[in-house]
Amino acid sequence: MSRDHRIHPLFTEQDGELAVAGRTVSRWIAEAGGRTPLFLYDCAVIEAKIADLRAALPKEVGIHYAMKANPMPELVAWMAGQVDGLDVASAGELKVALAAGGDPSHISFAGPGKRDFELELAIGVGATLNIESAREFARAAAIGDRIGKPVRAAVRVNPPFDLKASGMRMGGGAKPFGVDAEQVPALLAEIEAAGADFRGFHVFAGSQNLSAEAIIDAQRKTIDLVADLAEHAAVPPPLVNLGGGFGLPYFPGDQPLDLAAVGAALEKTLAARDPILADTRFVVELGRYLVGECGVYLTRAIDRKMSQHEVFIITDGGLHHQLAASGNFGTVIRRNYPLANASRFGATDAESLNVVGCLCTPLDRLGDKVMLPATEVGDVIAVFMAGAYGFTASPTAFLSHEPPAEMLA
Amino acid sequence: MSRDHRIHPLFTEQDGELAVAGRTVSRWIAEAGGRTPLFLYDCAVIEAKIADLRAALPKEVGIHYAMKANPMPELVAWMAGQVDGLDVASAGELKVALAAGGDPSHISFAGPGKRDFELELAIGVGATLNIESAREFARAAAIGDRIGKPVRAAVRVNPPFDLKASGMRMGGGAKPFGVDAEQVPALLAEIEAAGADFRGFHVFAGSQNLSAEAIIDAQRKTIDLVADLAEHAAVPPPLVNLGGGFGLPYFPGDQPLDLAAVGAALEKTLAARDPILADTRFVVELGRYLVGECGVYLTRAIDRKMSQHEVFIITDGGLHHQLAASGNFGTVIRRNYPLANASRFGATDAESLNVVGCLCTPLDRLGDKVMLPATEVGDVIAVFMAGAYGFTASPTAFLSHEPPAEMLA
Repeated sequence: MSRDHRIHPLFTEQDGELAVAGRTVSRWIAEAGGRTPLFLYDCAVIEAKIADLRAALPKEVGIHYAMKANPMPELVAWMAGQVDGLDVASAGELKVALAAGGDPSHISFAGPGKRDFELELAIGVGATLNIESAREFARAAAIGDRIGKPVRAAVRVNPPFDLKASGMRMGGGAKPFGVDAEQVPALLAEIEAAGADFRGFHVFAGSQNLSAEAIIDAQRKTIDLVADLAEHAAVPPPLVNLGGGFGLPYFPGDQPLDLAAVGAALEKTLAARDPILADTRFVVELGRYLVGECGVYLTRAIDRKMSQHEVFIITDGGLHHQLAASGNFGTVIRRNYPLANASRFGATDAESLNVVGCLCTPLDRLGDKVMLPATEVGDVIAVFMAGAYGFTASPTAFLSHEPPAEMLA
Repeated sequence: MSRDHRIHPLFTEQDGELAVAGRTVSRWIAEAGGRTPLFLYDCAVIEAKIADLRAALPKEVGIHYAMKANPMPELVAWMAGQVDGLDVASAGELKVALAAGGDPSHISFAGPGKRDFELELAIGVGATLNIESAREFARAAAIGDRIGKPVRAAVRVNPPFDLKASGMRMGGGAKPFGVDAEQVPALLAEIEAAGADFRGFHVFAGSQNLSAEAIIDAQRKTIDLVADLAEHAAVPPPLVNLGGGFGLPYFPGDQPLDLAAVGAALEKTLAARDPILADTRFVVELGRYLVGECGVYLTRAIDRKMSQHEVFIITDGGLHHQLAASGNFGTVIRRNYPLANASRFGATDAESLNVVGCLCTPLDRLGDKVMLPATEVGDVIAVFMAGAYGFTASPTAFLSHEPPAEMLA
């Protein structure tokens, strides 16, 4: 096949098949007991991504992993040794982070609807709470008093700007996330009055953005904003989480983010920062950007049929494992994720195929009119970009099929 | 509050609260061990729905339940005693149907990607396979031979028309479902040659349709189509599954389907049917239409906050349980499902609120600018129309929260 630029260069061809981490997919499937569908995550892809980030970003900027992108315990355990902190969004994720060996002093917990038992777990282990409202802080402070533990509190700010041209905007205007900037001084006073341990600020302006210019602009505004807000705190912010927003190219025509430009601009912005932030550590919080490309979803063709002059390849997978790839999660217009015939990875594209899942619903589409090699029943189809928001962001119980297998490569 | 016409009349007010099956939601939540979110399904609502259907439809038309809409085992067990058959879409659903006491001779199994182990289970228990391709039938016949069991085979036809103005079109044009009408004679010959037990036809032209005219038209075309196709079968079709398509009103302005008109037209169509169908039984296959209205999703307000002059109610639920209600499943434009403050069901609407879930994503919205009574932390929010495509059609593992509770009322 003509290689799709969106398929990571570490995914290669071996004996005519797609190879992941030096083994063919048929060997990986055999290792999974013959089970398909199979999510396979190649840590070398993540390692390369982190190396690129470290090379591009200023030295004083750390990297946090936003676990929601892929909370597979083995992946998180591997990741804990590679990054500078883990960001969790629930007690469930916090437990996985702790079991993965994550250092609680480098774990932060964001989320607009933290329940009391979640606050208690986080305070108990000494994780940082990204406080989303004054009321949430009051609950946290009461729990800290009750269990005799200090509350480590960062303030999540709803910034008065958004990350332009984002896949998802999370700042700007009325939002359920964080505290509007003008309410922050009052919250900082409450944090001080309660004797909590002020950890800094968290500002997340948007996600899945391919424009370096937009990210540079949002980072600059974020650093200006937290410098202003820091005037109201008892101590300078020990840490500022600049959020994420770094996007990946999913679709034809998408251009990769210019990471070097983002890094160079951030270096300049930090060099010129307000002295109140002189000793502040900065981190970026990335989920999809770290793990999106590492994953391949392998699903086997069960049937091949012709309907009204179109060929359909019916697989044993589908939207119950790959909701986003089916075009049903966070997208308005459905577009194909990159996919390939993994059993004939070296073969030439020969026909236009509709690749669908096994579910009895017209929503269950993986590839509309994609050019693939001549494809037969039994072939394994690979859906790329399956490392983030795949398995856990899909309705696995829909139509009561078996869950997919999941392995680190 | 001013009662929303989309809220089923069996849901009433008691002591100021929403009552389901004669008990307040706070009693139901107590019965669930205090757990929220809670899916509560009121069988009386389904019973009323089935009674309406029996009254409207011709006597010779049976009702099948499409389990994919809600496969909760207790609900299916209750349903098995009310309907004339169960339609399953996977081995997992088939097992639930059997455990529910479903009679295998009234269970049919549709789905474009049935795996060999699924075919074997179905053939083994004597369920009917809705055959989706010639290749699938060949696999089924081989399995039947191997295990020494007859294959009960109905032919699923991809009709050359679709159900106009449907929420989801499943016929017309190139489709992964069923066999194009022109390929059916050849498949019927193979079924006869293999000595399989021919059970009839299955035609599913679309779903979630509120237009009686469109459904009447599709049913008429379906009956004409199967009469034509029946000429090619060795015996007249014992059963014809007319599909479903009966829609429910979800959004303001939606008008309920005129069931009486559908029933009267079907009576006429059947009276005038081709004599080859004289002894054929007919069924409609309904999922959402039977159970959509019976369900209420109860989620508790954890926080109430103001951002840029808008009020946000943050609940302990969200799109991980209610993907469709969040506007992220099968819809292009997000609209609010009917919802209410269940703790103040008798109170007057007083404010415009944004009701969101607890997930750290802007996709997690349950109600945008809905008028509700003054709402406080601790109040229970009810999302109606939660009986179909709720729990199992949602990404429950997303952000690693606890699964919701689920009960029959």
